[in-house]
Amino acid sequence: MTIKEQAAVMKLNSTKMAVTTLEERNRALEGIREALLAHKEEIFKANKEDMERAGKEGIAAPILKRLKFQEEKLQEVTTGILDLIGLPDPLGKEQMRRELDRDLLLIRESCPIGVIGVIFEARPDAMVQIASLCIKSGNCAILKGGSEAMKTNKKIFEIIYQAAAAAGMPENCMFQIEARSDITELLECHESVDLLIPRGSNEFVQYIMNHTKIAVMGHADGICHIYADKTLDLDKAIPVILDSKTQYTAVCNATETLLVHKEIAGELLPRLNEALRAKNVEVRGTKEVRQIVECEPATEEDFSTEYLDLILSVKIVEDIQEAVDHINKYGSHHTDCILTEDPKAARLFMQYVDSAGVYQNCSTRFADGYRYGFGAEVGISTGKLHARGPVGLEGLCTYKYKLFGNGNIVADYAEGRKQFHFKDL
Amino acid sequence: MTIKEQAAVMKLNSTKMAVTTLEERNRALEGIREALLAHKEEIFKANKEDMERAGKEGIAAPILKRLKFQEEKLQEVTTGILDLIGLPDPLGKEQMRRELDRDLLLIRESCPIGVIGVIFEARPDAMVQIASLCIKSGNCAILKGGSEAMKTNKKIFEIIYQAAAAAGMPENCMFQIEARSDITELLECHESVDLLIPRGSNEFVQYIMNHTKIAVMGHADGICHIYADKTLDLDKAIPVILDSKTQYTAVCNATETLLVHKEIAGELLPRLNEALRAKNVEVRGTKEVRQIVECEPATEEDFSTEYLDLILSVKIVEDIQEAVDHINKYGSHHTDCILTEDPKAARLFMQYVDSAGVYQNCSTRFADGYRYGFGAEVGISTGKLHARGPVGLEGLCTYKYKLFGNGNIVADYAEGRKQFHFKDL
Repeated sequence: MTIKEQAAVMKLNSTKMAVTTLEERNRALEGIREALLAHKEEIFKANKEDMERAGKEGIAAPILKRLKFQEEKLQEVTTGILDLIGLPDPLGKEQMRRELDRDLLLIRESCPIGVIGVIFEARPDAMVQIASLCIKSGNCAILKGGSEAMKTNKKIFEIIYQAAAAAGMPENCMFQIEARSDITELLECHESVDLLIPRGSNEFVQYIMNHTKIAVMGHADGICHIYADKTLDLDKAIPVILDSKTQYTAVCNATETLLVHKEIAGELLPRLNEALRAKNVEVRGTKEVRQIVECEPATEEDFSTEYLDLILSVKIVEDIQEAVDHINKYGSHHTDCILTEDPKAARLFMQYVDSAGVYQNCSTRFADGYRYGFGAEVGISTGKLHARGPVGLEGLCTYKYKLFGNGNIVADYAEGRKQFHFKDL
Repeated sequence: MTIKEQAAVMKLNSTKMAVTTLEERNRALEGIREALLAHKEEIFKANKEDMERAGKEGIAAPILKRLKFQEEKLQEVTTGILDLIGLPDPLGKEQMRRELDRDLLLIRESCPIGVIGVIFEARPDAMVQIASLCIKSGNCAILKGGSEAMKTNKKIFEIIYQAAAAAGMPENCMFQIEARSDITELLECHESVDLLIPRGSNEFVQYIMNHTKIAVMGHADGICHIYADKTLDLDKAIPVILDSKTQYTAVCNATETLLVHKEIAGELLPRLNEALRAKNVEVRGTKEVRQIVECEPATEEDFSTEYLDLILSVKIVEDIQEAVDHINKYGSHHTDCILTEDPKAARLFMQYVDSAGVYQNCSTRFADGYRYGFGAEVGISTGKLHARGPVGLEGLCTYKYKLFGNGNIVADYAEGRKQFHFKDL
């Protein structure tokens, strides 16, 4: 079968997946957890082969680190599955219960989206997390992982699918695609696939968005900012800036730009510069910054760049308004933080900054589904529609309106014989 | 200024609109209501000119009816504005309040989407409703109404914008575009416009979707079904079918196809056929239907057709499963109804039918923002993402995550010095 045909079959069967009970879905997750543990040696072996090939091909160290899937990662993902089992059912949640009239009851209830295609990087743990999230949320999934992890993914997928099917999940509730050329075919499945979630580079996500009619939930750049207000507490500020920049640089929620209120710059920048140097961070500052500390010059381009590296651009601003304007202009609407002890300044910043996450006095690195208590995430959305920020189970659900009547007709209301009374129950 | 430039300015100013208070937005709505009433003669005069021109151009009667904007419509829309003023603030609503740790508080709060472009048919009342919804939800709006209503729209827009500005809404919080060619330019404004809501024919909505990078919320066809189960109550069923088909035929929530359980067909169809004939409805039935009542033959194509006319296609099915499969295959995921006295059958139908609205024993014509108590609607979404079904204020909002810390850094959690405790407050 072609991918289009497989997707069409999946679409038809997706209603079966949608009506599985929480118990059935949790049982499948438990089955998957046990199967992954039982078959771990096979997975580790496949992963060693992937690692060897990647090593020979000279793949960069950070990618190798993500590719590695041995005991430690297995423990992480199986613990993650346990967490997910513990989360409440995202399906069948009543979001509204309204009497339109005495005998006409409207209920809005959450339900799965249907068929979701996820394209993710060469991280075998992502395969486990994404498949688990899709099962818990009652969605069918088409999974495409990065090709460097091909053998590991294939093995993990087999184990997951067999365990899920054995636990009673519908046949064909998920399938894997492997070749990069398969993506092209997947992009054409707008009649069967309800949502695509591409993860990876900005260029890749843009490519996907521009080549499909399927709705895409993804993130563009992650250009996160910290604005150091004049009212900040230096002892909190410096660790937060260091953590935001250095705790993990190659990720979208790492901070790329620091904006500093002119009145605090003289105090903050020298201490900060020293701390950043100690962590091997290259500072790129505007002219005003370089009058206070020695650093590389920052150009206009720096402020639009997602470094994903140990580089921080720094700019001095007149006031909070200039900071907000800079962020809304150069930022990617991902996550931006204000360092301040003044609740009014924080409120202003949070109101005016148009980003999925607006923070006060904490690291931008907290922007993550796990850290928000979502169990895991399929991605982080910088779009504003449907889901914004880290996307967990809730972002994989939609809703339907159920209307229970007693022979009610619209003509009675249109012609004044009956009136709606709209009572929320 | 070009439309692109105007949209870019609007985008920058959209944060000002986002932070207006409920009182300010309601005051603007009240100002608009009063201004519309005060300037009604000018509006009526402009509308008479539109009507005259449309009459000369031989515009069809249903379109003329929608185009007409005199005393009655004015009363409707100004009453609608009063209703809207009475609705609670859709902004700043807490959707989540979770302590991630003792001193790390996550709040998810609703906020406006930003800049919304709405393209709607030649109905001056739609101009008032859409502009009002955008103001109440703190969104900036680019409005394009059908060209037949050009003079009326121009006048109404002037009155609305002046009243809104006088009441303190930000300058340029809305603008109107008039030429059809302006739409082409609007479609290119993906850097400034967050959402497009096109209303009109299916072809038009598809055209918009295929020619822009902006997110589009719209509906495809409205092929709504009624499934008459064997357990139905005939006295409820027949009025509901009649209402669904005939109360207003030219709309997306009118029923186009009736599916009848084989065991009830002999009883239902003769009575129904008579009632439909009395309402001038042409019945198109499958072979099995025509063995019971005299009617036109239905082809495969009929079941994929949105008639928007006094035509009903009818098919006999073996059971509820066949009905569900038919609806999921041929339907447009808009609104589908089961007629049954059996709660189990209703539950099954509602679970398996993959539509925005799933109804029991009531007319599909109830699928409407006003009738759901949303005050008004900007459209009905047959997509599954963001908003599904009638879209009112809530569908014009998104949310942001606010995280309040005390110098918290991720390294403490990653390295085990601190633990999240995820407590919903």
